[in-house]
Amino acid sequence: VSLPQRQSAIVIARAGGPEVLEWRDVAVPVPRAGEVLIEVQAAGVNRHDCNQRRRGPSAAHSDIPGLEVAGTIVDMGHGVDRARLGEAVCALVDGGGYAHYVLACADQTLPLPAGLGATAAAALPEAAFTVWHNFFELARLAPGEAVLLHGGTSGVGTLAIQVLSALGHAVYATCGTSAKCEVARALGARDAFSYRDPDWVGRVHAATQGRGVDVILDMSGAQHSAHDVQVLAQGGRLLHLSPGNGAELRVPLRAVLAKGLSIGGSLLRPLAAQRKALIARELRRTLWPLLEAGRVRPVVHQCLPLAQAAEAHRVMESGQLMGKLVLVPGAQAGADRPMGLEAQPPQRNLA
Amino acid sequence: VSLPQRQSAIVIARAGGPEVLEWRDVAVPVPRAGEVLIEVQAAGVNRHDCNQRRRGPSAAHSDIPGLEVAGTIVDMGHGVDRARLGEAVCALVDGGGYAHYVLACADQTLPLPAGLGATAAAALPEAAFTVWHNFFELARLAPGEAVLLHGGTSGVGTLAIQVLSALGHAVYATCGTSAKCEVARALGARDAFSYRDPDWVGRVHAATQGRGVDVILDMSGAQHSAHDVQVLAQGGRLLHLSPGNGAELRVPLRAVLAKGLSIGGSLLRPLAAQRKALIARELRRTLWPLLEAGRVRPVVHQCLPLAQAAEAHRVMESGQLMGKLVLVPGAQAGADRPMGLEAQPPQRNLA
Repeated sequence: VSLPQRQSAIVIARAGGPEVLEWRDVAVPVPRAGEVLIEVQAAGVNRHDCNQRRRGPSAAHSDIPGLEVAGTIVDMGHGVDRARLGEAVCALVDGGGYAHYVLACADQTLPLPAGLGATAAAALPEAAFTVWHNFFELARLAPGEAVLLHGGTSGVGTLAIQVLSALGHAVYATCGTSAKCEVARALGARDAFSYRDPDWVGRVHAATQGRGVDVILDMSGAQHSAHDVQVLAQGGRLLHLSPGNGAELRVPLRAVLAKGLSIGGSLLRPLAAQRKALIARELRRTLWPLLEAGRVRPVVHQCLPLAQAAEAHRVMESGQLMGKLVLVPGAQAGADRPMGLEAQPPQRNLA
Repeated sequence: VSLPQRQSAIVIARAGGPEVLEWRDVAVPVPRAGEVLIEVQAAGVNRHDCNQRRRGPSAAHSDIPGLEVAGTIVDMGHGVDRARLGEAVCALVDGGGYAHYVLACADQTLPLPAGLGATAAAALPEAAFTVWHNFFELARLAPGEAVLLHGGTSGVGTLAIQVLSALGHAVYATCGTSAKCEVARALGARDAFSYRDPDWVGRVHAATQGRGVDVILDMSGAQHSAHDVQVLAQGGRLLHLSPGNGAELRVPLRAVLAKGLSIGGSLLRPLAAQRKALIARELRRTLWPLLEAGRVRPVVHQCLPLAQAAEAHRVMESGQLMGKLVLVPGAQAGADRPMGLEAQPPQRNLA
């Protein structure tokens, strides 16, 4: 295999706004044992990337952002079956996704689901691993339990609504606008409410015949915590995904005890590699059939050339998006190359 | 069987201090299907009883306090094996313990452990069910995990220290005085710290080589919550037992996410009867052998005649006790009948 030794990639030059994202010439990484090198066809953008950019370069992580990609396996380290060369995969990666080549642990890759192109597949890993880890590993969501998502039209929200409703759960969502509520319902939410509605708690209670919901996934920081406790059913679980800008989580302890609640939070990135590998296996078993049957489709808000990563961060931080942003390295140097770089079925129509 | 139809019992006459506990003539209850009637030899006192007394009579519960007893089965309802008549048991009861006769669900009774008298056995159920439910059902304590108890010399604390250290866990405790810390160590705690020490968090970190503890059981309300989050290891669980007088639980959300923590709380009394029955089976399998081997002994601070229930509540609310208070109905009408109403091995020496 003849691979380049150098590549251009987007790096975080210093702490700051989207403008600190710069094209740089960097080495193509070399896979170690258990790793594969993926030629990136598409890279998903996550809020985490923006947070990392604001904090600036760190010794702990690659300065190249990007936690998920889709592409082709072009090299591998010791212990990885060489028959996988050329395999089309999507993968969770520990940074480095905003590039032409990125390393992944072989067992954190998943085959491109039949019927999905690289752009859609790059929008999957973070949301899929997050949904699985939170609902099934942490919250141990049981059959028949009802769910509430804050941020129903986020990347995680749009996937969670589809996956959980496909698995038979009643899913409720809060969103910031009525248009977003419409999208959440179109994706399968039993109902969606504006979190600006002062009585969204009452509406969730009414929708659940006063029972409340069993699990809440909250990407909004701590702002809803006291209401979350009100809206949870007996034995309910509240899971936070966002550190909420240093906010304090404040809830009445009496209600926690009276309902036997559990409140937690987690970050996907620091999870041990073995646990991510376990989740990958579970996703292949459970989510992949739903994807290949067309019952769940990643929602891609916009696809931009990798060179426009800064613009992608601006869109992400504007909050004016529904679903995922995806970067495509094929169109270097900020060219105006249009979307739809690959043949694939049309994305889910949200209208 | 010839049973009296009336009995004297302690009832909560109205909301208030210990003085609202009054002797009353009440009916001896009749067991329904699945229930047994226990002739009470000893009844444990819990902080819950004091809280119930302060709130006053309620339609939801018996006005007779008391959540645990030891005694003899003297009658039973449909579906309970009549061979159990005369069996010496201890039991979790849904109120009514401060009496001569009380009902219990048959499957929430446990045989008197060999070598324990009724006084010691009456001090067991609440603490044992609480320890099991919290550490093994809610926190899923794993082999090798370390534990911190706030309130190391409370009824729950004194039992938890013994049970968890017997099962091989490193147990740390905080207490209010150095004398209580001594007791916690004597019971098996690897170390104990005064929670008045401004650096108890640092001491727990030092004792655990900076790792922190995996599970905290907090009976102190919300006052330690922010420190609890500091002292928890990655993946740690914080479980609250006390509603803390209406306090707000306040913790930094970022730390919860960074460590992947889970914070919860529960009350034992509202737990479904089937779940309590399950816990009883687990306790018989796991705790009873430790009790019968003498490796775990309930710590009884003081044993008082049932007529002195108000005095027991005063002692409980003074905080000046280590271990459990037990009431003995044999000594009616406030007589000065001495302790040690039954032949049993000497209680664990705390000196």
